[in-house]
Amino acid sequence: MQKFYGEMDKLYIIKIGGNIIDNEAKLSLFLQSFAAIEDKKILVHGGGKLATKLAEKIGVEQKLIDGRRITDAETLKIVTMVYAGYVNKNIVAQLQSFNCNAMGLTGVDGDIILAHKREHPAIDFGYVGDVDSINIPLLKNLLAQNLSLVFAPITHNQQGQLLNTNADTIAQEIAKALSSDYEVKLIYSFEKSGVLLDTEDESTVIKSIDPQYYKELKAKEKIYAGMIPKLDNAFAALNSGVNEVIIGKAEELNKLMKGTAGTTIKNE
Amino acid sequence: MQKFYGEMDKLYIIKIGGNIIDNEAKLSLFLQSFAAIEDKKILVHGGGKLATKLAEKIGVEQKLIDGRRITDAETLKIVTMVYAGYVNKNIVAQLQSFNCNAMGLTGVDGDIILAHKREHPAIDFGYVGDVDSINIPLLKNLLAQNLSLVFAPITHNQQGQLLNTNADTIAQEIAKALSSDYEVKLIYSFEKSGVLLDTEDESTVIKSIDPQYYKELKAKEKIYAGMIPKLDNAFAALNSGVNEVIIGKAEELNKLMKGTAGTTIKNE
Repeated sequence: MQKFYGEMDKLYIIKIGGNIIDNEAKLSLFLQSFAAIEDKKILVHGGGKLATKLAEKIGVEQKLIDGRRITDAETLKIVTMVYAGYVNKNIVAQLQSFNCNAMGLTGVDGDIILAHKREHPAIDFGYVGDVDSINIPLLKNLLAQNLSLVFAPITHNQQGQLLNTNADTIAQEIAKALSSDYEVKLIYSFEKSGVLLDTEDESTVIKSIDPQYYKELKAKEKIYAGMIPKLDNAFAALNSGVNEVIIGKAEELNKLMKGTAGTTIKNE
Repeated sequence: MQKFYGEMDKLYIIKIGGNIIDNEAKLSLFLQSFAAIEDKKILVHGGGKLATKLAEKIGVEQKLIDGRRITDAETLKIVTMVYAGYVNKNIVAQLQSFNCNAMGLTGVDGDIILAHKREHPAIDFGYVGDVDSINIPLLKNLLAQNLSLVFAPITHNQQGQLLNTNADTIAQEIAKALSSDYEVKLIYSFEKSGVLLDTEDESTVIKSIDPQYYKELKAKEKIYAGMIPKLDNAFAALNSGVNEVIIGKAEELNKLMKGTAGTTIKNE
């Protein structure tokens, strides 16, 4: 049954960037803010440098092609251990200690995120997944039980293969899938104050970006290359029904939620 | 509301022992049998030798006191990675490929298993948890959605601390907690054909053990020391309302379910 806008529950979907994961004190403060959100909420995390560190320790070489990391079988094993095991369960345990009933999941669990191995004409990225579908009924049921869901960026292909998947993409795909049932706010939080005009100057946060302005910024090469996939993700989410997308500093989560900090992405 | 026996759904709670986890082919066959169970089902697994192997690789020394393993902070990190990450997600992905909608969990997730750090007058076992309580409503809700739950033996203390917890105990505690709502069959499956009169001879399976016979066997020192906690667990489960406890070979799961293989534990 179609609900009217005003009847929908709010749902915050928050991606937490790797650099925050690596900083115990910052992560803990962030998780306290997240735990305090009274609306329904989903956290999506990556693994920070922990996976790279473990790979070094056990002598698994990180392979890069054209600057992009390749997930071979050994690397997949490591990211599964670090993201779905160590990072996910420690985040969930901390949230529980802040009276937030969190449940840690990957896309494999309950078949929540089905993906396929990325096909590329020139590069074999290894066990990297591109998302096909989201199990909406199960997500709605879990959220209805006031569980706060915490996703590690691992998916599967329904044929027994785990796949390493971009955490920004997972946040976006879940946000899109749930946008018919909730008033979804998608927040990409990381170490920077937002999208910056000058990447060296934290005071140059762009307050809002619409598609026209985005084009201009890209034409003038004013957008840091690493930010482009995030912004493309953000616009795609808005175009698929997500109500709001905000990019900003993890330490300012409360302000990002109110729209008084960070960069708001607008599709008109 | 009290249900009458005949109205209850059947629930299989199956513990899978470490040696099967280490054997890819045997694990896969076991998971195929598990996936085929049409009744509600929960799998509890340990981590086999993988955690020990990873500890060796990264140079974390395994500490033993009186032959018992101590879970220091580094070991806890390793078991969290291996049990909750690698083993759990690979089992879930395989079950998904066998058309079983599995969800991997630890006791931390949804606060399903609350525990406390073990207190012992003489030995500090480190981050080892003894179970306090089970979140029954959440388990019932997940089972009602036809999810098959797969537990890694990690719990928490509600204060942000993860705890390494005996997988046999987790299976028993979940079985006891759900015995008012389901007709629970608890199966401890491992590499042996059941409780053996002669540990060297697989043909000496004891078909059934009641408390009187158990006393006699212990008095005659006919029970292998490692089996005693399992049997104590089994009797405790029966005394708390679990309908049936069976101990036997993982490869004979179907027969164990029917009671045509393994050792059946009876409380009268």
